[in-house]
Amino acid sequence: MNFADRLIEAICQKKTRLVVGLDPHLELLPPSMMNGVSRNNRVQLADVIARFCIGVIESVGDLVAAVKPQVAFFERLGGAGYDALEKVTAEARDRNLLIISDAKRGDIGSTAQAYADYHLGVAQPSSEHELQCLGADAITLNPYLGEDSLQPFLRHVEKGRGLFLLAKTSNVGSANFQDRMISDDQQAVPLYHAVAHLADMLVSRYPAGKHGYSSVGLVVGATFPEQAAALRSAFPRLLFLVPGVGAQGARPSDLRGCFDPEGLGAVINASRSVIFAYRDSGGGANWQAAARQAARDLRDEINSSVTRG
Amino acid sequence: MNFADRLIEAICQKKTRLVVGLDPHLELLPPSMMNGVSRNNRVQLADVIARFCIGVIESVGDLVAAVKPQVAFFERLGGAGYDALEKVTAEARDRNLLIISDAKRGDIGSTAQAYADYHLGVAQPSSEHELQCLGADAITLNPYLGEDSLQPFLRHVEKGRGLFLLAKTSNVGSANFQDRMISDDQQAVPLYHAVAHLADMLVSRYPAGKHGYSSVGLVVGATFPEQAAALRSAFPRLLFLVPGVGAQGARPSDLRGCFDPEGLGAVINASRSVIFAYRDSGGGANWQAAARQAARDLRDEINSSVTRG
Repeated sequence: MNFADRLIEAICQKKTRLVVGLDPHLELLPPSMMNGVSRNNRVQLADVIARFCIGVIESVGDLVAAVKPQVAFFERLGGAGYDALEKVTAEARDRNLLIISDAKRGDIGSTAQAYADYHLGVAQPSSEHELQCLGADAITLNPYLGEDSLQPFLRHVEKGRGLFLLAKTSNVGSANFQDRMISDDQQAVPLYHAVAHLADMLVSRYPAGKHGYSSVGLVVGATFPEQAAALRSAFPRLLFLVPGVGAQGARPSDLRGCFDPEGLGAVINASRSVIFAYRDSGGGANWQAAARQAARDLRDEINSSVTRG
Repeated sequence: MNFADRLIEAICQKKTRLVVGLDPHLELLPPSMMNGVSRNNRVQLADVIARFCIGVIESVGDLVAAVKPQVAFFERLGGAGYDALEKVTAEARDRNLLIISDAKRGDIGSTAQAYADYHLGVAQPSSEHELQCLGADAITLNPYLGEDSLQPFLRHVEKGRGLFLLAKTSNVGSANFQDRMISDDQQAVPLYHAVAHLADMLVSRYPAGKHGYSSVGLVVGATFPEQAAALRSAFPRLLFLVPGVGAQGARPSDLRGCFDPEGLGAVINASRSVIFAYRDSGGGANWQAAARQAARDLRDEINSSVTRG
């Protein structure tokens, strides 16, 4: 089944448009988990971040459409960090959660192939010549290198995986290049619109899912609601992965324009405001309960913002 | 000492402008190294790629200004691959070779910080609160997310590290976005020129090295010699890391425009055409000798193309 359909069915069955980002900042972990852990011991720290992320998955798994591990925080711990990343994704898979690898990779040729095969390959190989992989259901990609850099990833789309191309990101610096006006099909449009246009052209090569969405989507920041709404109406087949709610400042009420009239077409990511919610609720003893409460509240706020649309 | 000066002194002392890319494609490794290795055993394969890359370093170390590990091929093997990557960079460091981590990372906030700290942090921590890092001397970065995404990396520039921003890459797809004309300072320029302009502005915050070059440079493909020459004359302070020679089709004669009148300002990367040179010279028993010969030939061709300028 194609990725877009799998994501939309998770949204509809679980009645949630929320994605929780697994961003295990070492400095923000519940202090109780750091007892007896040496701050320079990568194996110990990797064990802590794996246990933390698995604890998040246990707490919020039924409230989210997918989880989104942020690869940087695992890479920070080298090989031990990647072992932790694979433990976390295995746990998510066992619980039938979709996994979006937030890797923002972008490269060419055999290098792009290696990234694609690791992130999107099958996690449990069936033959003795197959290598173990991360086995995510989707990955975030940086489009700056152009269409040929996406080809190795598109081969995995044919096998049911999904891609989210960075279009208009949630940070202030997204104005530096993404907002620059260029000529595209004789129209002046911002660069991020040309990225969306490329995604839409790629999409036309693959049958859209039964809900009308393609498995090649966009990353569109909630911090720019007008741009998100303009992209939504210009590109009705593209799924959006929307960061920027919570710690980055966007509010659920900014999200309306990301959705189609049926309230589909986007998933909303929150990371720190959910997984480290214990920091705003006094103490880390109940950090899992705090994460669950924050996820439930945000899920409900997002759902309300949609139904009010 | 700043990175630009360290790189230029390596160029001048060793009389080479060559960088060798450590791209251990599993399919191209010398067959003799694969004897008894199971194709799905990541620990065994990681051991092979570490031995292969260290063998390359032994063979060509005195002929190159730096080595450039391509992180994707190590990540392909998960945690075992990162262990191999760190073994390889440790070996390069022991031999006083500069290391450019070809990671093409690009992200924001604490995520960018995690990538920066891992790739560019100090490899041998001095305190019990410091984490082990890869410890590369420089990294390649994707600029699509804009200036704020570069800030965590710039903090390492202050400590002697270098950055190479993707500007005009060597692949055909670089035309999709990088060549789009935008308005920059009231001039119409291609997007890659605006990236170079941002690098040049960042540069002005750091003192240039004694050779006049900054530690924030560009990736500029040898496959587009006219564009490279135009960038060289417009941005005299920016170091170029130039891929595209060899397997990608550019020739040493295409490189002239990458250099300044003193023959400095650029290093030229070759990967497959050097490290897998044994494939063109019949058999893998002497793969190290073949790599050494290919590196020596290419070094000399590049040097000749400069002095003919």
